[in-house]
Formats: sequence, C-alpha cells, structure tokens
Amino acid sequence: MSSAAAETEKPPGKPLGPIPENFEAQDGELAIGGKTATQLVEEAGGTPLFVYSRDIIAGTMRHLREAMPERLHINYAIKANSHPEVLAFMADLVEGYDIASGGELEKIQAAGIDTRRVSFAGPGKRDRELEAAIEAGVTLNLESEGEARRALEIAERLGQTPRLAIRVNPDFDMKGSGMKMGGGAKPFGIDAERVPALGSEIIAAGGEWRGLHIYTGSQALSAEAIIETQANVLALADKIASEMGEALPKLNMGGGFGIPYFHGDEPLDIEAIGSALEERFGDLPETLADAHLCIELGRYLVGLAGVYLCRIVDRKVSHGETFLVTDGGLHHQLAASGNFGTVVRRNYPAAIATRFDAPPVEVQHVVGCLCTPLDRLSDKAFLPRADVGDIVAIFCAGAYGASASPAEFLGQGPAREVLV
Amino acid sequence: MSSAAAETEKPPGKPLGPIPENFEAQDGELAIGGKTATQLVEEAGGTPLFVYSRDIIAGTMRHLREAMPERLHINYAIKANSHPEVLAFMADLVEGYDIASGGELEKIQAAGIDTRRVSFAGPGKRDRELEAAIEAGVTLNLESEGEARRALEIAERLGQTPRLAIRVNPDFDMKGSGMKMGGGAKPFGIDAERVPALGSEIIAAGGEWRGLHIYTGSQALSAEAIIETQANVLALADKIASEMGEALPKLNMGGGFGIPYFHGDEPLDIEAIGSALEERFGDLPETLADAHLCIELGRYLVGLAGVYLCRIVDRKVSHGETFLVTDGGLHHQLAASGNFGTVVRRNYPAAIATRFDAPPVEVQHVVGCLCTPLDRLSDKAFLPRADVGDIVAIFCAGAYGASASPAEFLGQGPAREVLV
Repeated sequence: MSSAAAETEKPPGKPLGPIPENFEAQDGELAIGGKTATQLVEEAGGTPLFVYSRDIIAGTMRHLREAMPERLHINYAIKANSHPEVLAFMADLVEGYDIASGGELEKIQAAGIDTRRVSFAGPGKRDRELEAAIEAGVTLNLESEGEARRALEIAERLGQTPRLAIRVNPDFDMKGSGMKMGGGAKPFGIDAERVPALGSEIIAAGGEWRGLHIYTGSQALSAEAIIETQANVLALADKIASEMGEALPKLNMGGGFGIPYFHGDEPLDIEAIGSALEERFGDLPETLADAHLCIELGRYLVGLAGVYLCRIVDRKVSHGETFLVTDGGLHHQLAASGNFGTVVRRNYPAAIATRFDAPPVEVQHVVGCLCTPLDRLSDKAFLPRADVGDIVAIFCAGAYGASASPAEFLGQGPAREVLV
Repeated sequence: MSSAAAETEKPPGKPLGPIPENFEAQDGELAIGGKTATQLVEEAGGTPLFVYSRDIIAGTMRHLREAMPERLHINYAIKANSHPEVLAFMADLVEGYDIASGGELEKIQAAGIDTRRVSFAGPGKRDRELEAAIEAGVTLNLESEGEARRALEIAERLGQTPRLAIRVNPDFDMKGSGMKMGGGAKPFGIDAERVPALGSEIIAAGGEWRGLHIYTGSQALSAEAIIETQANVLALADKIASEMGEALPKLNMGGGFGIPYFHGDEPLDIEAIGSALEERFGDLPETLADAHLCIELGRYLVGLAGVYLCRIVDRKVSHGETFLVTDGGLHHQLAASGNFGTVVRRNYPAAIATRFDAPPVEVQHVVGCLCTPLDRLSDKAFLPRADVGDIVAIFCAGAYGASASPAEFLGQGPAREVLV
C-alpha cells in the first residue's frame, strides 16, 4: 500500500495527506467500485478522469445517520459536486438539497428532483433567479431586506406564495473552521438583531414562513467547535423566534463538517457531534419543539468519495529532482494545487494508482501539464517509482474539484467524470 | 473621475490599483470604444461582461514597437486571452503566436491563423497534441529529452519534418518577477547544460532546428530586472550555440513584461528595455548574428485593454459596513479575488462604471454573487455611492480573466465577452 508513506514516522520529502479508507489494491492497482484505475480509465475513454464512488457516498451517509439524531434531516449542498449522476444518486439518501444559483436549480430540475425539497442561499440572487425559484416552490434563504422585498414583489406579480426563510448573519463564527461565514460584517445573511423584524414583515406580507438558515463556517475538523456552534445556533434561533413571538417552522443549522485533506488531519468525530445534538434535541425550547431541523453538508458527503486520475506524460529530471508531468492539473484540481482559499500549499493525499501496492522508494514532484509554476499536484512526494503511462491518483477529489476549477484554462477543457 | 481615490494621499479604506490610462467618462459613465458601460452591456445582452478594447491593444502595440529594436519580433502568448476575436485582431499586430496546448492550437486554426507562425511550449504535451502540432507545421518548444524523442518518432510515422526548438531551463530567474519560471529544479524546459547534446541529436535526426526558447518569469515591473535577464538569455543562447558549433536560427527570449495591478505599482519602463536591447543587438555574438529574435508577451499586450463589468444586485449593510453584491465574481475573475497565485489579497483597480465621474464618498466592499467568503472583488474600496442597478468595473481584466477562472463554479457559467 502506498499509504505506507503517510504511516512512516518521517518519510523523505513533504508529507502527503492521508489516503481515505475504503480504497483497495486489486491486481496491484488502486480499485474503485471493483474496477482498477486502468479499467476505469479505459471505460471512460481516457484521462484526466474524476471517479466518484457510490459505495463510499452511501457508507458516509450510513455512518452519519447512525451518529446523528433520527430527527435531524440531512441536506446535500450541491455546490460541492453537481454532476448529474451524483445529484440523482443522492435523491434517496438525503432529505433536501441546497443550491446557490439559478444554474444549480436547472441542474436539480434536469435531474428530475422535486424542487420543493430545495432551498436556495446566495448573496447575489438576480430577479430571474428569484422568479424561477418561486415558481418551482424552492425555499429562498433571504440574504437581505432588499432581497426579501424583491422576492415578495416577484411572487405577487406571479400570483404565487413564496416560501421564505431568512439567512442569519450570527454574531459568532465556527471556531477552527477552514472558512468562516459568520461573525462581524459579512456579505451573507442579515445581522441577527434585524431578523425578527424582517421575519414578521414576511409573515404579514403573506409569505410562507420557512424559518431560519444559520451557516457559520465550513471544513471544520473539531467536533468540539461544531458542538459549541450548534448550541449557539439553537440558542440564536430560539432568541429570534421568541422575539418574533412565533414558533420556528424550520431551522437549517448549517454544516461545516470537514474532511481530512492534509498530513496530521484527523477525521471529524461525528459520534461526539451526534450525541451532543441528541442531548440538545431532548431539551429544546418551545420555539423549536416542532421545528423541522436540518443540517446541510456538501464536502463531507462526497469529498472522500472522489478520486482524480491523470496519466504521466513525461518523467524528467531537473537539477537532480524528478518531475512526473501529468495530463491533469490545476484546471481540474485548483484547490489541490494550493491556489484556492489556502495560504500555505500542502499536499493532498496522492498515489501512483497503477502501482498502488508498491512501496514508496523515491521523492518525486507531481505536476500538471499547464505552463505555469502554480500547477503542482504533489510537491516532493515519496512515492513508488513511476513512469510515463502510469496513472496518478489525487484523493479527496469528490468535492470542489471539477466544478471549482478553471477547466478552460490554457485551452484544456473539462475532465471526464464517472460515478461507479 | 473615480481614479481620484488613487491620487489622494491617504484615502479611506484599502487602496485600489491604478485605473489604466485611456479610459474616459462619457455622459458620466465609463466609456470604452466610444460606448458607455450601459450601452455596452445592453448591446451584449447583459452582465457579467468582459469588454476588450481594440484601440488600447493597438496603442500598446504601437508604443511597444516604438520602444523595441526593429529587428525584434513580437509574439502573442494566447494563454492570456484566447477569445476568437482577440486572436484574429492580433494577426496583423504580431509576428507570431505562442500556444500551450492542443486546445489552443484548435483555437488558432479556428481563427484562420497561419499555423507556421505558431510555437508550442508546455511541459505535458500528449502524443495527439504533438501529432497535431507537427502536422500543422507548428514549432515545438521541447520540454525534455523524452518529449524530443516522442516528437521525432511521431514525425517519422507521419512522414513529416518536425520543426523543433528546445526550451531551456536556465540557471537564473527573472528578479522581481511575479512568477519565476527558471533557476533551480523546474518542470519547464531542459537544464541548460544538457541542451547542446539534445540540439545536436535533433539535427542529426533530421528535425528542422528552430533554436531555443528561454522563458524566465512573468509579470515583472522592473525594467532593470528584465534588462539583466535579457542579457543573461542572450549570453546563455550564445553559450549553447557555441557548444553545439551551430549558429542559432531562432531565439525566443521569453517575456515577463508586467502591468500595474496594485496601488503603488508603476508601469514598466519599456523605453529603457528597448534601448538596452538595441545596444545588445548592435553587438551580438556570431552565433546570434542571423538569428530570428523574438519575445513573447500575453498579459502585457491585452491585460490593460480589458474591463470586467458586473451589475450590483444588492446593496446591504452588515455591522455598519456596506456590501455591494454583484452578479459577477471569482468565477470570472479568480485572480482579482486574490485566489490565484497571490498570498496577500490586494485590490485591482475598480470603479462604479455608471458613476465614473462622481467623486468617491463611501467605503464599500464589492463582492461577487458566490456563496463563499473568497468571492471578493474589492475590499473596503473608497468609491462613489452606488446602488442596485449600477455597474461595477474591474480593470486589468484583459488577461487571465475569463480563461483562467472557474466559470462553472456554483452553476454560474461563463461571462459574455466582446471586442470593441
């Protein structure tokens, strides 16, 4: 297993992130869904290729359901991965979907998903997006008073009752999250103290009141931080509902569950989060007693289930260092290259997929095919000896990979994607 | 003029980059090519919109030709902006084109450009890309011995004489460049000391010897650094040619000419570069006496000629700070958001296009419509008061904007683009 590199005390080179569980060797190669990397690439028609595993997504969901209170609904935030087959596969696994644009609404509709299961958050909703969402019965998580009024006007013009929730900009953020989305001045949501007045205005105007959306951060690996944040979210929701004098119909508690990308990252302790939540749910204030309670997860549900496969096109030595040049790159894996939301570049988990059970023997740089020094997939990675024709696997590629990368850069175009 | 903000000693907020010359107000609005922002958006069918100016590109070229020695050929590196109309417009302005992929070759062919004017650099050229390039008579800037042998094999199979140059990984880099591409172990090119042997091998194998490509860095604003680098490049080319015992048919001296993006950046002194080069060209060693000498520029030729226009969808206040939420964002302007090759985020030049001659009065954040805190276009920008419906302009958008951003992120899709 090439994951041995991560287990050794001090392997040479720079450490790689931990290869997620559930990836095995078959005929010496990395296998996903019972097929080797070579087979997967052949069937898909070539590299670069994103492979998403149904089994791993389903396993993550099973594990999550076991850990979380039965009452808790789980939504899929499709921004993480909106590949049509992934969207359709999630339909039986989650209760709801969260979208962030009119374009994502179209993807939901194209996948044949009931749009009444969908809620829509995003700070710059255009009129035509509001219109499409209202017509489809999507719940709008309103980001400002101005947006609320535009939505009410559009609904009136359409002769529809809009389903309206308010996204709250809380006075706290999620400690230790990779990306903070609450606390202080923010473009997201409405400052907590102004929410009750707007909530009452929506109800008075005849909107269908769908409660609150409180999102505080993403990619957190500390259960303690998430537990504390969820407690704060419930308390804030109670406070707002009490001020409004209305029981809350629905509360989207946000997400933020992270996955281990880098050396030293530990998986999130979701059992601890589940128990704490179970306890809270046993002692809810009256305002939340009958509320529909949900969390929204994107990366956590699909991130570990994806692998990016690219082929080595050149193996070259420069000043004594070896470079494996692949046909992939940052145009498909911007975050893995260290150029999206990170200050210090660190290595994602990586392996030579076609030599998955070979021992690491050599420090090699894995780079993409783009003519820019930014295009690095693994710096100084301690890997099995690899050659032209071998396939490299970059793990943790199920979320914010294909969809969050500049596919057209340098005329490259998108990667292939398959769900197996 | 909203550029007044940049001229004041200490305006409030965070400074904006300098608005490039040649943008004027017309009827109070930013005008490009004689049309106001409102007109441009109406004609294009909406925002977000990239507008590229023929006049500004042509002016940049004129200025450059005046400064540079007559003998110097100028190539356009299309990775900066490969919009079809821009490619076609450049045909009469530059001698050659540089491409970085098979996809870019297809764009060149679609634009009806003579492919014998084209050279192709890039560390991960696939066999099918080599094949297409050899068939089209494109010069290959070879990145490794392995690639050289693959190219020779493919050419033999095709019964063609391949046009082959070697990309050199020099022992020096360009001081003060935004992105270093030479010096030390690099995935680009072949270490200088191994180049003569490979050059001789190519000639012996019957390839058409097209000389050297020495690229050392990009986005440099110091004329001194470029002058020094060009001297080093000429000396290295002479050294390699002398070792080979062959006069050099062609030398691509690289590029690296930067443009001012940020507060405090000064335009590059191209007159100084031109004079120094003129002097060098008057005293070339014998190996370079008859060489075709060229530089390749992308960003410098088109970067300042582009403006990104997006419309304000929401104006909101959070904890006393004002956010202008636009329908644009990092999905079109990744670098401007500070998420591509930068460690510390700084503001590109920006303005309220529909109030271009209004005085700045208020510190406002300009953000995109994406549901991520990474989506910032201008932090704490001191701008005229702006409202929903106003159009924001982000300057320096002609290069590495549309093509180098994750257009499909959050289901958004690409921006419109026009050349006026």
